[in-house]
Amino acid sequence: MHEFIDLEKLPERELVPGFHARLIHTGKMTVAHVTARKGSTLPAHKHFHEQVTNIISGELEMTVGGETVICTPGMSINIPSNVLHSARAVTDCYVIDVFCPEREDYK
Amino acid sequence: MHEFIDLEKLPERELVPGFHARLIHTGKMTVAHVTARKGSTLPAHKHFHEQVTNIISGELEMTVGGETVICTPGMSINIPSNVLHSARAVTDCYVIDVFCPEREDYK
Repeated sequence: MHEFIDLEKLPERELVPGFHARLIHTGKMTVAHVTARKGSTLPAHKHFHEQVTNIISGELEMTVGGETVICTPGMSINIPSNVLHSARAVTDCYVIDVFCPEREDYK
Repeated sequence: MHEFIDLEKLPERELVPGFHARLIHTGKMTVAHVTARKGSTLPAHKHFHEQVTNIISGELEMTVGGETVICTPGMSINIPSNVLHSARAVTDCYVIDVFCPEREDYK
């Protein structure tokens, strides 16, 4: 069934301290609306899910496959399956992460 | 291979008059950064791909499965496979649409 979703009404999940997500699971993919507090870090990790990170506001330093870039609005990051990545919020940030397949570990 | 993508450097594709997209294809999904000009309409259509529309700025009237809602930032719309949907830009809009599997027709 289709859904019009007010993100504010979704529960917020702490991924790691300072990184909070509101999550939509569709069956085939997961869409994560993530806020990160300035100075917070997401340690290096990898997963078999494909991921695209889209920067909506703020600056997020991302290290992907050994390359580090400060990412700003108007940038997207394509992270293939099993590529190591980490992040550090240079400022408060809002990003939309999409994953395929679904992140069962985020349910 | 991972990619840090500057969306402005991607070619812009006209989906229908007034709706333009910059597209990222990952293998398993397509992420479309879409701008819609005020007053433009995307006629009713459906596809087997799952879709989530995320409103970043502006107001987009969406009709999904016979239900019409004016969607604003902070809203996401979950459109399952083969559900009829259409859109009308009430104002200039920026939305991020994600699809699974990839939209081969957008390549």
